[in-house]
This record gives sequence, C-alpha cells and structure tokens, in this order.
Amino acid sequence: MEKIPFNKPHLTGKETHYIYDAVNAGKISGNGKYTKLCQDYLKERYSFRKCLLTTSCTDALEMAALLIDIKPGDEVIMPSYTFVSTANAFVLRGAKIIFADSREDHPGIDEDSIEALITSKTKAIVPVHYAGVACDMDKIMALADKYDLFVIEDAAQAIESFYTGKDGIKRALGSIGHLAAFSFHETKNIISGEGGMLAINDPQFMAKAEIIWEKGTNRSAFFRGEVDKYGWVAVGSSFLPSEIIAAFLWAQLENLDDIQTKRLQHWNKYHEGLKEWAMENDIRLPGIPDFATNNAHMFYLVCKDLEQRNVVIDNLKSNGILAVFHYLSLHKSPFYLDQHDGRNLVNADRYTDCVVRLPFFYELEKDAINFIKNELYEAVKNI
Amino acid sequence: MEKIPFNKPHLTGKETHYIYDAVNAGKISGNGKYTKLCQDYLKERYSFRKCLLTTSCTDALEMAALLIDIKPGDEVIMPSYTFVSTANAFVLRGAKIIFADSREDHPGIDEDSIEALITSKTKAIVPVHYAGVACDMDKIMALADKYDLFVIEDAAQAIESFYTGKDGIKRALGSIGHLAAFSFHETKNIISGEGGMLAINDPQFMAKAEIIWEKGTNRSAFFRGEVDKYGWVAVGSSFLPSEIIAAFLWAQLENLDDIQTKRLQHWNKYHEGLKEWAMENDIRLPGIPDFATNNAHMFYLVCKDLEQRNVVIDNLKSNGILAVFHYLSLHKSPFYLDQHDGRNLVNADRYTDCVVRLPFFYELEKDAINFIKNELYEAVKNI
Repeated sequence: MEKIPFNKPHLTGKETHYIYDAVNAGKISGNGKYTKLCQDYLKERYSFRKCLLTTSCTDALEMAALLIDIKPGDEVIMPSYTFVSTANAFVLRGAKIIFADSREDHPGIDEDSIEALITSKTKAIVPVHYAGVACDMDKIMALADKYDLFVIEDAAQAIESFYTGKDGIKRALGSIGHLAAFSFHETKNIISGEGGMLAINDPQFMAKAEIIWEKGTNRSAFFRGEVDKYGWVAVGSSFLPSEIIAAFLWAQLENLDDIQTKRLQHWNKYHEGLKEWAMENDIRLPGIPDFATNNAHMFYLVCKDLEQRNVVIDNLKSNGILAVFHYLSLHKSPFYLDQHDGRNLVNADRYTDCVVRLPFFYELEKDAINFIKNELYEAVKNI
Repeated sequence: MEKIPFNKPHLTGKETHYIYDAVNAGKISGNGKYTKLCQDYLKERYSFRKCLLTTSCTDALEMAALLIDIKPGDEVIMPSYTFVSTANAFVLRGAKIIFADSREDHPGIDEDSIEALITSKTKAIVPVHYAGVACDMDKIMALADKYDLFVIEDAAQAIESFYTGKDGIKRALGSIGHLAAFSFHETKNIISGEGGMLAINDPQFMAKAEIIWEKGTNRSAFFRGEVDKYGWVAVGSSFLPSEIIAAFLWAQLENLDDIQTKRLQHWNKYHEGLKEWAMENDIRLPGIPDFATNNAHMFYLVCKDLEQRNVVIDNLKSNGILAVFHYLSLHKSPFYLDQHDGRNLVNADRYTDCVVRLPFFYELEKDAINFIKNELYEAVKNI
C-alpha cells in the first residue's frame, strides 16, 4: 500500500486551460473575466448580495474588520478553537478578542455561552462553521439584533453547506451574517492554492467593500461610469487575487457538484465503517445537527483523551497514513495567554487534545478508506 | 495597423508547465518549492539578506509597516506622487503621512526636501524609485542615520535596477534600505498577475518577518526543527502567495536577462527616436542620473502642460495607441486633502498633469515604436 497523505489537491482538468485563456487575453492582474465569472456564480448559487474574491480567507476577514470599522478597544467574540486568522484579522485593527468555548457536542462556538460575554464594547460575533457544519445561526442573529452587533461568519470550511432556521428556510452558510469569509486554500473542498472570498449581505457595505478591495480607490465605480475620475477615497489594501488564481478557481467551481458528490461518498463510507467501532471505544464521530447539512469538508474523530489520540496518530503514521490534529486553543497561545481573562474553556481544550482529522480528498479510494479503517481498529485495540 | 495596448503581459513559455508541476507535486498553497526557488534566486542575485514572496507589493509594504511597528501618531515621509498603496500600508497602522514633493528633474522624491519634514514623530522614510530609477540613496540613508529612522524602499518598479553611491559600490535597489517592497503586477518587467516581494536587509527583522508572513505563527521555525511545536506568537496575516503564482513567477525569473535585454532595446529605440523632437517641443524624456541604472520599466514623456498632454493622449488614442497618465498627487486626494498640512507640492502636481506613459511591453515591435513616434510628431504638430 502506498502512503496516504492527509490532503491531495484535486485538479478538475481545465485549470491550466483557463489560465492560458486568461494570459492570452492579456489580463492576469485582478478583477478580470474569471474573477467576475467566479463572483457571479457564487453570488447566484448562494444568494449573497455581493461577493469579492480575495487572496485568502484571512484577507476576507481583514476586509470585514475594516468594513465594520473595528477600533482599538472594541471587543469581538469568537471561539478559542479556531485558526489564528479568525483572531488576527481583528487584532490588526486593535480589537480585544473575547474567546468563547466550543459546544460540548461539536467544536463550533457554544451559542448559549455568548450572551454572558457581551459588554458595551462588543462590536461583533464571529461564529466559525467548524468542518463546514453550521452554528445555530438563529441564536446568534437574535443576539446581534438584541445588542446591535455585527455577525461575521467564518465560513472558511463551509462552502456548499446550509442552515435551516426556525422559519423553515434553508440558507447557505455565509449568506446569513452581515459579512462572511470563505477559503479556497488547497485543503478546502474547492481550491485555488491560496485564495478566499468575502460575501457581503448587509447592503450598507456593498460600495465600501469594493473600495477597500481596490486599494481604497473608487476604480470599480469609475469603470462602471458612475464617477468621472478615480482616486484615493478611503483606506484600503490590495485584496484581489490574480486572474491566474481566479481562472484556476473557475475550473473548480464548474465541477462543484461532482466534487461534492464524491466527497459525500467518502464521508459516508468513513461514517458507516467507523460508527460502531467509535461507540465501543468512547470515540466520537462528527455529528450533523438537524438544522445543518453536511458539506463533507473533513472527517474527524474526537478521541476520548490525548493519549488515545497520540496512539491513533502514531499508529496510522507508522502504516503510512497521515492523520493530523487541528487547532490549539487560542486563549492559551503564547501571544494571547496574558490577554485572556482567565476563564476556563474546557471544550476548546478538549478538542485541542482529542481531535484527529483523517485523510480526506477527492481521489481517496474506497480501498484506502477500508485500509485506514482497519488500521484504526488495530491502533485502538493495542491501547 | 492593429491597436497598440499600453501593456501586454509577456509569457516566457514555461509558466503553465511549472504550474502543472506544482499541482502534480500536490502542493499549491504557499511556501513550497517554487516560492523557495524564487526567493533564493532573488536573494542571491540582488544581495538581500532575506526575501519573502507576497500576494502583492501592497502586502509587502504592509508587512514593512508591521515590522517597524508603526503606531497611531507616527509620521512617515513619502512622495505625494506615488501609488495609493505606498500610503495605505502605513495609514492602516495609524500613521500620519507627510508628503514630500518630487524632484524638479524627476518624479522621484526630492531628497533635499526631506530633512525639513522630519520631526520627533517621524519613524520612516519611504522613497519610491519611480520608473525603476534610483533615488539618491546616500542622501536618504544619511538622514536615516542622523535621525534614527527606518528606510523602506518602494521598489515596485525597480527590479534589476542599481544605485552606485559615493563609496563606488553598485547595489541593487531594494538592498539598501532596512526593508524594500517589489511588485510583480502584470504591468511590471517580471510578472505573476498580482504579486510582490518583501526584501529584508536589516537582520533584526528576519525572524519576525517570517512570523508575520505565516499568520503570526512560528510555523517556519517549526518546520526547520527550531521549535518543537508551533502556535500563535504574534499578530500577522496571510501574506504568502499560492505556489501557482510562484511557479508562474519562476518561469519569468528564468528569463530575466532576456526580458531585460529586450526592454532596454525598446527603451533606447524610443529615446533615440524622440530626443530631438522632445527638445524642440518643450517635452522632457526620462533621465537617468549618474548614480542610477536604467531597468527599462517604462518610457514616459513629461509634457509642457496639461493641454499638451491631453492632445498627445487623445491623438494617440484616435490612432489606436493607448498611452496613459499616471499618479494623481496623494496630498490632494479626496481621502487625504484635509489631513495634508497645506504645503504646495508643485512638482508632484506638475507630474500629475504632465506625465504620459507610452506603450511598453516585451512584444512591442520596432514598427510599432516607429508608428507611435510618428503619431507623436503629428499630434504635437497640430497644437
């Protein structure tokens, strides 16, 4: 058996064809034909008001922090169990991060713990849809309404995932908060190497987002003929990706349904093969709440403790299978430990110690999943 | 005669080959093989201490602002006649921009005007090497020494351009200041669509730059085995480009000498064909001071006034030739007008009104340059 990597970027076949096309059209800087194709497609498919491609999900989060005008002293509530970029984007603007714990039954933010963290300084809540599984957005949006806060969905892993609220309407993740950030990093379902997207749902941000994206200039309005010259009108950055990246992404988006079908097959195969074994060994498999759908972004186990996880990772590794842990609680990071208010976040710490992600990518064969499953059986038997 | 665009991205031939290679190697996110190839090549060729690819020159400038720890109230001196990103990068960190005028004989910063602008709040000088032509770096570095300031070279246009100081040593632009930012935007000599690079010359920034680049984590040190785990250790962002972009860039760098030879031919052809005509019509051609070299980044005219420039641009346009103006003085921009201290910057305003850039790209044919030259003759004759 060959080695099984944790991730393998999937090529749909037309990526380089579209890159050639972009180059031959003489336009490889940002905001060209492929950027527009991707943006229009994503906007329509997921009912965003507007969306803008970015060079990373990190950059999309930074745009969000600029849009809601985060200032030094503002507080932003987010889970501790998340990627550093969720926090960095707001720290860069001077915010204090108030870390919330994860749910007992899921690594996502514990929605019921949020209200107690809100103060007069709170400006935003940033729910992270861990593994592409929705947070309970009704609860979060109700808090935002009650306390006049912004909600920025960290939807890095959440493409093609949905939430059905109490009104019975099924909405795409990223279309519910005021703003949302997606990732097209090579480890995601739909990829462009590095890459991301900002989704804009609150209309007050539509014009401003475009300006920030274009280096603080009103260049987009100029090209639409809305202003007669363009200049420096606000602070901004260069958030837009090259057309090379957008062309690559377009080839992926054209195959979104195929990619999702295949990934769901892998996910179900894992789940089917592991559910009894997991119960017998005090290991938890990912659960999908009734209000959420499954986008098959990843397949992870929550081991019963750190020791069990170490055995699993080491045993798989010695059999050529790369399974990996995930985030380290940010409230205990070298950078933020002193700034955290000392609250214990037991679930975040448990996921830090106990989550292990299994190999997951389009080309993963049925045989490979069986092999991984059997090696998991063996690993845990030996504890 | 076909239409002549202002710019046309040049493909060296192996761009998509290397992109394929990166994808097949299973690594298209940042900091892979091609990123290292590009960084090592550029570091060696130009004697930087270290360099890091970025998603844009804007991002490299933002990294520089983070590295020198710009805080609200700090002052940064730069020319008014520059791209918005030069200023945005520091405004994002809270700096006040003190705009300097351009030289009478060149759009670059008037080095002799800088000292009068230095206050106790000044933290950095950002010279912009306009058209790839060196500022007088001896003067600027002497001020930095005298007042303990950082120098960040905006070398967006300045690849393969050099400066020879009083010590007689010829140094690459970008290797002289504490930090420097380069662009690989499609309009530059060496391109990757959108793209850039931070050059680090002051050793105090080497470790910190890598951390900021990798989202505030010590991931790079971890992979070198210098620390036993990696985590969030500082504020940072995702500045690194996809390997798709780095692979594209590598195909360009392999052909740097060929690209430069061709561009210099075009530049000399323009200069030869226009120098007498320019003198007769009160038009200035780009000059290269003795301390500088010419990297043939662009060919521009400085018309005698706005009216003459409008005639030139309009006449060329009606003959299918796209010639374009350049920056608008930032001290008069809608965003900064109220924050500027009211000093008149006459040269910056003159370049705003009078610069016109002629079509300039690798595939520009000798016939096309002759055609443009003749249309210029005609245009000015009609005034």
